[in-house]
Amino acid sequence: MSDLCDLTALELQTSIAKKAISPVDLWNACVARIKTTNTALNAVVTLDEDAGRKAAKEAEAKVVRGDPLGPLHGLPIGIKDLNETKGLRTTWGSELFADHIPVRDDTLVTSIRANGGIIAVKTNTPEFGAGANTWNRVFGATGNPFNTSLTCGGSSGGSAVALAASMVPLASGSDLAGSLRTPAAFCGVVGMRPTPGLVPTTDSVLAFSPLAVEGPMARNVRDLHLFLQAIAGNNHLDPFSRPADSGTGIAELKPANLRGLKVRFSTDLGFAPVSNNVRALFGTRIAALEGCFASLEERDPPMQGADETFQVLRAVRFIAAHLDRVRNHAAKVGPNVTSNVELGLTFDAEQIARAEAAHSDHYRRFIRFMDDCDLLITPVAAVQPFDKTQNAPTEIDGQTLQNYVSWLGLAFGITMTAHPVISLPCGHDSQGLPFGLQLIGKRHGDQRLLEIALALEDVLANSIETRRPLVDFAGLAG
Amino acid sequence: MSDLCDLTALELQTSIAKKAISPVDLWNACVARIKTTNTALNAVVTLDEDAGRKAAKEAEAKVVRGDPLGPLHGLPIGIKDLNETKGLRTTWGSELFADHIPVRDDTLVTSIRANGGIIAVKTNTPEFGAGANTWNRVFGATGNPFNTSLTCGGSSGGSAVALAASMVPLASGSDLAGSLRTPAAFCGVVGMRPTPGLVPTTDSVLAFSPLAVEGPMARNVRDLHLFLQAIAGNNHLDPFSRPADSGTGIAELKPANLRGLKVRFSTDLGFAPVSNNVRALFGTRIAALEGCFASLEERDPPMQGADETFQVLRAVRFIAAHLDRVRNHAAKVGPNVTSNVELGLTFDAEQIARAEAAHSDHYRRFIRFMDDCDLLITPVAAVQPFDKTQNAPTEIDGQTLQNYVSWLGLAFGITMTAHPVISLPCGHDSQGLPFGLQLIGKRHGDQRLLEIALALEDVLANSIETRRPLVDFAGLAG
Repeated sequence: MSDLCDLTALELQTSIAKKAISPVDLWNACVARIKTTNTALNAVVTLDEDAGRKAAKEAEAKVVRGDPLGPLHGLPIGIKDLNETKGLRTTWGSELFADHIPVRDDTLVTSIRANGGIIAVKTNTPEFGAGANTWNRVFGATGNPFNTSLTCGGSSGGSAVALAASMVPLASGSDLAGSLRTPAAFCGVVGMRPTPGLVPTTDSVLAFSPLAVEGPMARNVRDLHLFLQAIAGNNHLDPFSRPADSGTGIAELKPANLRGLKVRFSTDLGFAPVSNNVRALFGTRIAALEGCFASLEERDPPMQGADETFQVLRAVRFIAAHLDRVRNHAAKVGPNVTSNVELGLTFDAEQIARAEAAHSDHYRRFIRFMDDCDLLITPVAAVQPFDKTQNAPTEIDGQTLQNYVSWLGLAFGITMTAHPVISLPCGHDSQGLPFGLQLIGKRHGDQRLLEIALALEDVLANSIETRRPLVDFAGLAG
Repeated sequence: MSDLCDLTALELQTSIAKKAISPVDLWNACVARIKTTNTALNAVVTLDEDAGRKAAKEAEAKVVRGDPLGPLHGLPIGIKDLNETKGLRTTWGSELFADHIPVRDDTLVTSIRANGGIIAVKTNTPEFGAGANTWNRVFGATGNPFNTSLTCGGSSGGSAVALAASMVPLASGSDLAGSLRTPAAFCGVVGMRPTPGLVPTTDSVLAFSPLAVEGPMARNVRDLHLFLQAIAGNNHLDPFSRPADSGTGIAELKPANLRGLKVRFSTDLGFAPVSNNVRALFGTRIAALEGCFASLEERDPPMQGADETFQVLRAVRFIAAHLDRVRNHAAKVGPNVTSNVELGLTFDAEQIARAEAAHSDHYRRFIRFMDDCDLLITPVAAVQPFDKTQNAPTEIDGQTLQNYVSWLGLAFGITMTAHPVISLPCGHDSQGLPFGLQLIGKRHGDQRLLEIALALEDVLANSIETRRPLVDFAGLAG
């Protein structure tokens, strides 16, 4: 059975503008869906029904009055619980902030609200986003809608699940080591990690590091584009932001002509541990794409040393963000954050300086790699969804992994390139679990990448069963 | 007596295009000036007369044929000896590279050559640019044209002196802690540190650090603009480069309307050691500017901790760039480079992480400071030129300085903001030595800042004697 909340964001936006759908009815449908499914899924951790309904009524009044409407007008937007929302509890998944009610919206939320989005739903995340699972001590674990005993991935797991179960039409994510890509892939939705700066982040503890970004999540590429258009902007507080006089480069969306594209694919980026299962799944997808492009060539980008480099850069970031917290509130900080900080403190100046230089090389090598093609395709994740009580895979096909980040090479290898990337759903495995492709475009080619993803979404729908199978909401409710 | 080489770059460019001046005659005039003055000044460390004459003849032939001409067509450009020039010795001021003949042009030189510049003159710099004096073991010290026993500042000292003595009409600089600003101020010429990325640097050891940039140096603002227009560009190998679809923002130059500007000034940025002599000189300049602007208010930007932060960031950069060299060739690496590396190795991960976070705060505080004004004015340097055999001031008015970078707070405080800044000559002190103003514009407001500098150059010419007094070339030759 399909409800209002199962419509696409674009359908909803258009219908709201035409007065065919009331924002209040939409809000009610979203709340009903949350109530039906969230007990089993635990994706939404804070829901302010009254605030949402009030905002929906105001949105409706604006439509009736004929006021100008923002692109997200009347759409309830799931906000990851790492983003501060004025008057709406924001915990960062941390016991230290379990009762924190922000007095301001952060930059992303300000932008969503200004574009008409309704802010009353917060989605689950591991503590301070540190994890590729979605679990924390405040709210527990979020389940995968396709099998609630399995993980939805992380750290934007709550957003991905809320989308997959149609609790909200759009939801925000953030990404350092795949935090919006992995959950999108595990839950059969779309996530985009834009070129750093396109969606300005103004609170990042390390402004000059391009590793952590925020980005849109949605159920399809057109919705993703709608959301990105609203949150892309120019804000000098993010030093990677495009200059104000240059716009955002995000324009009307038309499918790319795939036959004109020179495409490369790589199963493991030449260094990432990847399971045999994922290798096989990826192989069938690549086979299905044969003949779609001007060329499709297997080629690993040069990523030597990526693992060591990322471990150091990530740990330095954790020191900057969390050292004082670990020192002053040790009992209330979880093991992922603590272990990252402790790892960081073992590095010396030489290791850090070399990692920063290696990051520069990594970036420039990849720029040159992409000079010769339009798109790189890889799997999103090294494994398919695992048990939600497990923090991370500890081994892959017998290969032991160093720590909880080690299985994420496919994600962080691309993170360090500062290129735009979309996690696109691409069918299911034999267990009925979604599988995702990672599409990497040229730097600042975010619009072009969206156009390619749109065209590919269409091709895949005809070659591989890519539609999101309906989640058994009745089963979830029971 | 004035020669061809004493004309402005803009006059020369226009006259060459009109066939009124031959590039060969200009080259000959530059060579003659170098021969007259360089023995005393030691600004030019490599001169390839034949290559320059050959290029000038080719430039002349193009004019005669009516070929399209680049903006630097036929102009000999002084290239700092940190930039690789194909076939032309490039030493970085290091004994390790005393005989190095590059097989390629670097990005800046490629751009200059592509725009018609003649590349046959290299200018002196301290070893690997590490110094605010211009001295190295390969070529010795460069003297100040206004008093050859005094320093020209550094590290782009050779370029500044070559300009002041009209050896070349334009010269390249680079800047981490004032390396093109201080020499410009000490030699009475103009230097611009652009917003990072506007002049793409593709060889920087730390691509994601905005601290080191390259920029134009010239004898006046119009010439500076001509040069910047040629070397500004979009190159993704520099992650701070503007996207290719956004142009450079550098356009036709018109003087700004100063009366519309909200201006702030600060004598010491609230933290930098500044001599009483410079405080007094700056005071007279500010007094002369009263009434020029919509408002002129004294206000220090919030720069707490800038000194400690910069020392750490700078040292990490030196480790990344030079540690292996210091370890493997200790006898051939000078004390500035070695001491920076050694200092760096004393810092631990916590100090480095905190410095990177502090840099982010410094940047964002300054963005907000500049939100409320159009321009910030400070002195360029804490002291006036000192003895050229001295590495750096060790004290200022009795205040002892920690190391050879400590006197450069006025410069590196602005460096860490990643904002555009112009070093503009502004009269002379009682010794006849030039004095310079530091003009800081809004981020990415490089064109606007040039327009302001152009208008100010004009105002200052009528209120303070700012014209470059003629260097006594006969005296230098004798």
